[in-house]
Amino acid sequence: MLTPGAARIVESVGEGVTEVQPGDHVIPCYQAECRECKFCKSGKTNLCGKVRGATGAGVMMNDRKSRFSINGKPIYHFMGTSTFSQYTVVHDVSVAKIDPQAPLDKVCLLGCGVPTGLGAVWNTAKVEPGSIVAVFGLGTVGLAVAEGAKAAGASRVIGIDIDPKKFDRAKNFGVTEFVNPKDHDKPIQQVLVDLTDGGVDYSFECIGNVSVMRAALECCHKGWGTSVIVGVAASGQEISTRPFQLVTGRVWKGTAFGGFKSRSQVPWLVDKYMKKEIKVDEYVTHNMTLGEINEAFRYMHGGDCLRCVLKMQD
Amino acid sequence: MLTPGAARIVESVGEGVTEVQPGDHVIPCYQAECRECKFCKSGKTNLCGKVRGATGAGVMMNDRKSRFSINGKPIYHFMGTSTFSQYTVVHDVSVAKIDPQAPLDKVCLLGCGVPTGLGAVWNTAKVEPGSIVAVFGLGTVGLAVAEGAKAAGASRVIGIDIDPKKFDRAKNFGVTEFVNPKDHDKPIQQVLVDLTDGGVDYSFECIGNVSVMRAALECCHKGWGTSVIVGVAASGQEISTRPFQLVTGRVWKGTAFGGFKSRSQVPWLVDKYMKKEIKVDEYVTHNMTLGEINEAFRYMHGGDCLRCVLKMQD
Repeated sequence: MLTPGAARIVESVGEGVTEVQPGDHVIPCYQAECRECKFCKSGKTNLCGKVRGATGAGVMMNDRKSRFSINGKPIYHFMGTSTFSQYTVVHDVSVAKIDPQAPLDKVCLLGCGVPTGLGAVWNTAKVEPGSIVAVFGLGTVGLAVAEGAKAAGASRVIGIDIDPKKFDRAKNFGVTEFVNPKDHDKPIQQVLVDLTDGGVDYSFECIGNVSVMRAALECCHKGWGTSVIVGVAASGQEISTRPFQLVTGRVWKGTAFGGFKSRSQVPWLVDKYMKKEIKVDEYVTHNMTLGEINEAFRYMHGGDCLRCVLKMQD
Repeated sequence: MLTPGAARIVESVGEGVTEVQPGDHVIPCYQAECRECKFCKSGKTNLCGKVRGATGAGVMMNDRKSRFSINGKPIYHFMGTSTFSQYTVVHDVSVAKIDPQAPLDKVCLLGCGVPTGLGAVWNTAKVEPGSIVAVFGLGTVGLAVAEGAKAAGASRVIGIDIDPKKFDRAKNFGVTEFVNPKDHDKPIQQVLVDLTDGGVDYSFECIGNVSVMRAALECCHKGWGTSVIVGVAASGQEISTRPFQLVTGRVWKGTAFGGFKSRSQVPWLVDKYMKKEIKVDEYVTHNMTLGEINEAFRYMHGGDCLRCVLKMQD
């Protein structure tokens, strides 16, 4: 999934917008937070529903129309943020106002993948000190899971990836040991169960592969192991397992934006970055311009690139 | 699954057995509790592992042999309890000592299905006051789920069953409204989502049907709905769903013996029954003798029978 995190400066605000004003530094958030809907009020989820219908359709909520066009033909908005653009228009519930001292070319990462990984550990799984954690996929989200697990006091953070080049880098993010499924004949879930005297306490799928999602569940310890789906699978694909896996105590969950309430908690994450309590710079492996965006995507598909930050102007 | 709850009197004890003695009233528990293994000590599960290997193989742990035979040929133990027998031999970690005043022909139900349903609500799902609950399958386990949900303060307990005869009886156990999937053209998950403004807070599958397990998950509310698999599916069958169901906040769990720690908590359930805080008598629809056991099974497969209590002697 492509969810371009970004950090911007407010150029103008529409009628009735009170929480931000021109000049404010903001992070556009694909997951809105209105603080008024059933979801926001539940205290149980970050999945605000207020503008979902409009952002899902690529339009603004008030008139169900787009604010982008080319040669008079409308272009739809993307995920409520449309950040691959020098100027964009977003709903007021979709921007988090942040510390103006924070460097925009770094904290833009706090609009998507890094919070997703950290929050999967802190909010969704609630990993406790001493836990054994498995992370499937060592891209940005997986590394943020490892970083979050280390911060939560995990005793072992096992990184699983088929690209051995990723292993050295992952140590800096908290991964304590590595498993390459290609090095084993047994199914990866069995390899992990054998490595951990019965299975891991928490596992995280950060790839978007439904077979790996199954392995991530089944490598969990009987009685309490919890697996969190973080990756986004291709449309139409399904996960499956034997129900006995759940009846014997494993729990299957998922997370979106790591369970963080965007407007309330993204500014807190920015503050944690400014206090050097969470990594951000370390995930930026490339810096390019908007004009080089197609090349940037090619880097993303390679194993070397974690995050490529695009400047909007050359 | 057939897990015959029973209540018995200790006839004799083996060497080193200290917690029960001849004459004690006990409930044999297919899920043992040793209080020493990794599982018992975790505080996170009731799935004691101490005698699992032996009971799974149908033998006693010390010599890996059976205590039953016919004409010199060994017969295996069943689920660690072998209760369809006038005399049986069980591990000491597999019996819960109970109040000798409790009627054995009633509290025998506390050895399996009734605690499974109550505990699925109280221990596994932890249903809160005001919750909307869906129960799939209105047999003994499903009715115990309804009873547990009512006790937990659920605002609505929706019972789902394809046998309309079960609906009247279910009211006495806390079911507040009924849905028969046969009355609807839409998938049952969609019927329930429409009935509940977005889905139920908790659902329980008490049948053992993998398609119903999927429906039970998918009728849960986005953001927080939790589905608990209580029924036991046929061997080899698998559950499946789109991962998006979990990524958008639903949680898939399962339960065995309702998460109750058997030796510690079955006596507590017996006490609750003696104080009339939980139903037991109401689940007993038939009383028969061991000699009539095959007829008893035929009743079990009909919709009228909840639990048939077998006396061991005619």
